[in-house]
Amino acid sequence: MKKLINDPDEVVADALRGIDAAHPELRVDHEHKVIYRAEPKTDGKVALVSGGGSGHEPLHGGFVGPGMLDAACAGEVFTSPVPDQMMAATTEVDRGAGVLHIVKNYTGDVMNFDMAAEFADGDDVRVETVVTDDDVAVTDSLYTAGRRGVGVTVLLEKIVGAAAEEGTDLDGVKEIAERVNAGGRSMGLALTSCVVPSAGEPTFDLADDEYELGIGIHGEPGRERLPMAPAAELAQRLLTPILDDHDFTDGPTIAFLNGMGGSPLLELYLMYGEVRRLLDEAGITVARSLVGNYITSLEMAGCSLTLLAVDDDLLRLWDAPVSTPGLRWGA
Amino acid sequence: MKKLINDPDEVVADALRGIDAAHPELRVDHEHKVIYRAEPKTDGKVALVSGGGSGHEPLHGGFVGPGMLDAACAGEVFTSPVPDQMMAATTEVDRGAGVLHIVKNYTGDVMNFDMAAEFADGDDVRVETVVTDDDVAVTDSLYTAGRRGVGVTVLLEKIVGAAAEEGTDLDGVKEIAERVNAGGRSMGLALTSCVVPSAGEPTFDLADDEYELGIGIHGEPGRERLPMAPAAELAQRLLTPILDDHDFTDGPTIAFLNGMGGSPLLELYLMYGEVRRLLDEAGITVARSLVGNYITSLEMAGCSLTLLAVDDDLLRLWDAPVSTPGLRWGA
Repeated sequence: MKKLINDPDEVVADALRGIDAAHPELRVDHEHKVIYRAEPKTDGKVALVSGGGSGHEPLHGGFVGPGMLDAACAGEVFTSPVPDQMMAATTEVDRGAGVLHIVKNYTGDVMNFDMAAEFADGDDVRVETVVTDDDVAVTDSLYTAGRRGVGVTVLLEKIVGAAAEEGTDLDGVKEIAERVNAGGRSMGLALTSCVVPSAGEPTFDLADDEYELGIGIHGEPGRERLPMAPAAELAQRLLTPILDDHDFTDGPTIAFLNGMGGSPLLELYLMYGEVRRLLDEAGITVARSLVGNYITSLEMAGCSLTLLAVDDDLLRLWDAPVSTPGLRWGA
Repeated sequence: MKKLINDPDEVVADALRGIDAAHPELRVDHEHKVIYRAEPKTDGKVALVSGGGSGHEPLHGGFVGPGMLDAACAGEVFTSPVPDQMMAATTEVDRGAGVLHIVKNYTGDVMNFDMAAEFADGDDVRVETVVTDDDVAVTDSLYTAGRRGVGVTVLLEKIVGAAAEEGTDLDGVKEIAERVNAGGRSMGLALTSCVVPSAGEPTFDLADDEYELGIGIHGEPGRERLPMAPAAELAQRLLTPILDDHDFTDGPTIAFLNGMGGSPLLELYLMYGEVRRLLDEAGITVARSLVGNYITSLEMAGCSLTLLAVDDDLLRLWDAPVSTPGLRWGA
């Protein structure tokens, strides 16, 4: 294992020091490993808290800022944060309007956020939760009952962040979050494994001439291993199960081609070109595009495709100003 | 070789289709492989043209937009664009105020931009050129006479782009560009090789327990191969030759920790934390930070450090609004 780290057990703590140094617009609580906005809004805005295992950067810490999250809890690599972290974040950001927990559907995350929400309720902080589960690859997986939460989480944090920023109340914010999750579908593939620092070796083996279709963002098994193929075929393999699962022809769509972390941006754009050709052929109207590394799996090579059905209101929220390290426009 | 591509010879053409589809704010001339702003400014602004071999994305095409470049010429992977491309871009973007060519110091790029500038001069377009050469690793290299141009190119395109946007004339823009290049120093390291699609195999071999210090952005040899070491030591190895070459203690500095493409963002932030600790110890004042993948080498794992000495005026230009796919704030 060759990595830009010191001690494998201190990777997250060390990285948080770097995030703190690089981003004066953020504040890092190193004790609880929570990233906050340096200048929180003081009005009665609904607060958004997310978090999860580290190793998916910029998700979630890179999405803290005006127009997106209020706080992100950083777990160890590919390990859920503990309830204490979520509890600290929840009570810190509440301004009396309540808090939405945005949770990717992995058993540990769901359980821990659930406990934190119960504790917060005891402290008279009203908490609602949305659980993302957009990955069509598999039902029930290594760390999940039901579908896994992947790419739609990024889009949801942006859209719901905008809704909260403009003063939508907790019920309204939760309704929008559920609408986004319901309209989003994802599928991923891996060309190489990631390497978890504490393990020190690849999570899985993959031959030089095959790829894993339906890969999870922690290297969990997907649907099948297939012989390596041209990008045009890979794009079709990502798109078909998404379109089999949901109809995207009756309104505008946000198309999101996400890098797993180790594939060059040049290749991600190339894949996006293939996807767009297929979407055009399928009669799907792409209203907005997002291409790049937003929900990663350490250095895994590969990509995922997320489609999100939207209406004018969701598009307006998507276009609203956002100012975070990972996503920034109009502000 | 496993890559998200179709035909190795069509990688750049195919990727440009994806860039075109993803970014309505850009316009791609597929014949000449040039990326333009979709809505160019029509006043008499000095135009900035850059370009170079592909494989370093988001550089340069991802830096086209308000506050940065007017056009970027995309060569084949790690291969200079040809003079015809630069010529087309230069005549297209000229608004009568002249054009600045921003060229990284590689023999092919310098020669081809030079020819394009001569042609343009024949067409009565005034062209000035700045050649970046900030890499302290080696003097004369596989593709370079003198020092290589690396990370400072990103910072220069941002700062000079802001100067052009606010109406600075060509002489002024060129003076600022030269000041930025003169005040910038960089040093990189690689943990793994990149794989050029047309070659189909790693550019160089590196053992599982060593890294290459002073790596070039095309995988050109650096200074030496060293046994793998903790991030704290790697940071020192990057910083020492930079500080040996230039004094950064007598004013503010922009610190830029760049990923080569294949290292997780988590590790880049971790490295930045180490760098900041060393900069503090060295009495260097960091005014602004930039951490992420901005000038990459396909899927190479590793990073580079760039320091740029700035004054209040350069900082103001750095902070000015920019709106490009790769760098965006305040707009």
